[in-house]
Amino acid sequence: MTLTSWNDTKTKQAVLDFVASTTDENSPDYIVPAERIAAFDNDGTLWVEQPAPAQTGLLFGKIVEQVKADPSLAAEEPFKSIVSGEEAFMKALAQQVPEAVIAFLKGIGKAWEGTTPEEYEAEVRVFLSAAKHPRFNRPWTDLIYQPMLELFDLLRANEWRVFVCSGGGRDFMRVYSEEVLSVYRENIIGSAPEFAYVDGQLLRQNKLLGNISLGPGKLEHIHARTGRTAILAGGNGDVDLEMLQEARFRLVIVHDDVEREYVVTAAAEKLLEAGREGGWTMVSMKDDWSRIFND
Amino acid sequence: MTLTSWNDTKTKQAVLDFVASTTDENSPDYIVPAERIAAFDNDGTLWVEQPAPAQTGLLFGKIVEQVKADPSLAAEEPFKSIVSGEEAFMKALAQQVPEAVIAFLKGIGKAWEGTTPEEYEAEVRVFLSAAKHPRFNRPWTDLIYQPMLELFDLLRANEWRVFVCSGGGRDFMRVYSEEVLSVYRENIIGSAPEFAYVDGQLLRQNKLLGNISLGPGKLEHIHARTGRTAILAGGNGDVDLEMLQEARFRLVIVHDDVEREYVVTAAAEKLLEAGREGGWTMVSMKDDWSRIFND
Repeated sequence: MTLTSWNDTKTKQAVLDFVASTTDENSPDYIVPAERIAAFDNDGTLWVEQPAPAQTGLLFGKIVEQVKADPSLAAEEPFKSIVSGEEAFMKALAQQVPEAVIAFLKGIGKAWEGTTPEEYEAEVRVFLSAAKHPRFNRPWTDLIYQPMLELFDLLRANEWRVFVCSGGGRDFMRVYSEEVLSVYRENIIGSAPEFAYVDGQLLRQNKLLGNISLGPGKLEHIHARTGRTAILAGGNGDVDLEMLQEARFRLVIVHDDVEREYVVTAAAEKLLEAGREGGWTMVSMKDDWSRIFND
Repeated sequence: MTLTSWNDTKTKQAVLDFVASTTDENSPDYIVPAERIAAFDNDGTLWVEQPAPAQTGLLFGKIVEQVKADPSLAAEEPFKSIVSGEEAFMKALAQQVPEAVIAFLKGIGKAWEGTTPEEYEAEVRVFLSAAKHPRFNRPWTDLIYQPMLELFDLLRANEWRVFVCSGGGRDFMRVYSEEVLSVYRENIIGSAPEFAYVDGQLLRQNKLLGNISLGPGKLEHIHARTGRTAILAGGNGDVDLEMLQEARFRLVIVHDDVEREYVVTAAAEKLLEAGREGGWTMVSMKDDWSRIFND
């Protein structure tokens, strides 16, 4: 069964047509398997992003814990702006305001500096098993969009390789990607710290590997990982614009379902405009998806 | 047919036993598919590395061309030490003396600064189609070790993912990896420049992405790419030591065949010692391989 959680709309047909034409050797749109790279944003494209990306919860918890252990930190950046203005900061983050994202990444860099991959993974697992979404009251990993998992299956069945390219943390996603998304860790792309192998151990450095994986940074990270640009790209925010512009098939997830999810246009205005003007494939969560979560 | 260019020795049997035990759910050595990451060095492990890695030829050609166009460059580093002392420099490179490798990488960084991936790829293709190995008088891509391609096939048939992790340039290898090694570009790991996406174009920066992919840097790059360390690792030089130490199955390619290839111990002393003392799987090119190249 193919795309069972998608309604029979022209959106679904566009997806099916694209996959069929690019894998048919007799089609003028045929793409050789080596070039079949699909890349998808994570927050808001594969799971719920409102009221703020899941990963922010992990960082806030960590910051609070560190400030408790050493109260003098509350006067230092990036702790100061995070602890003192949580609500405004959360809102800016949800809208992916670059300054907030940068402060957030600095916070992450500092909070986990010197830890091993195993230590970080253990913390993420504790967070993911304990945290619940404020509205849906379910673990974040229950809030994956089922239609997107079905799209992944369709693509892989047709020799497309599916990559996730998030502005958020690569290593955060890698903890759950195999179990929840059926995406191997090596296909997870995102903002990431450098690691240094010292005395037989990989240690996290307080330094980004390349640029932040937002906007142009997504293309930089996809190229670094794959040696290519994604021919199929999906996103939901302005920070996905460049990735979609460079793709041949562009999927825009439109948050227009106030009952089952959210209505959001903030930080997506440019993408929505580009998509509508360019005739990109606009996915209405309300009209194109019969089911959003796997209940 | 499995490993047809391998003689029926205990080395071949060790490889077959490892693959069988790690893919048998009833074996205590079973490894779940997600963790089946194999990583192999490139020069000297997958193809001929003597008298100097193939990629050095590309750089020397480029440097000569640039110095011709602008003779004042001959007085500047890294051009100066490369142009003035080619023979000694080549020898140091072949032995992967860190200073030579760093100068080489600086040369590469400077020589191709500001180029697009497509421009670089075109130059590599011209080089690979024109350059011939000084002894074998054949294109470098004819000098791939056939037994290693058969090992790749065996691994992939058993749900292992095969990565190449070279100290040389990631983007150099990506040009030929799919056609020659049947390894997708995203599975090629190596030293690499940062790229910046500017005005709709990815432009190569004169700056390394992370550290050089040598020694500890190999583990850093494998972790960045895969989120894991390689359980199976193969190499032939001291710069592969850390990667093999962290693996469970270690394959050391021993260059002991003066007639069909080369006898080399330089820059491999530590690896050979660690392998012999640790009981690693030592591949004698002379005794374990019935065929070296695919003639």
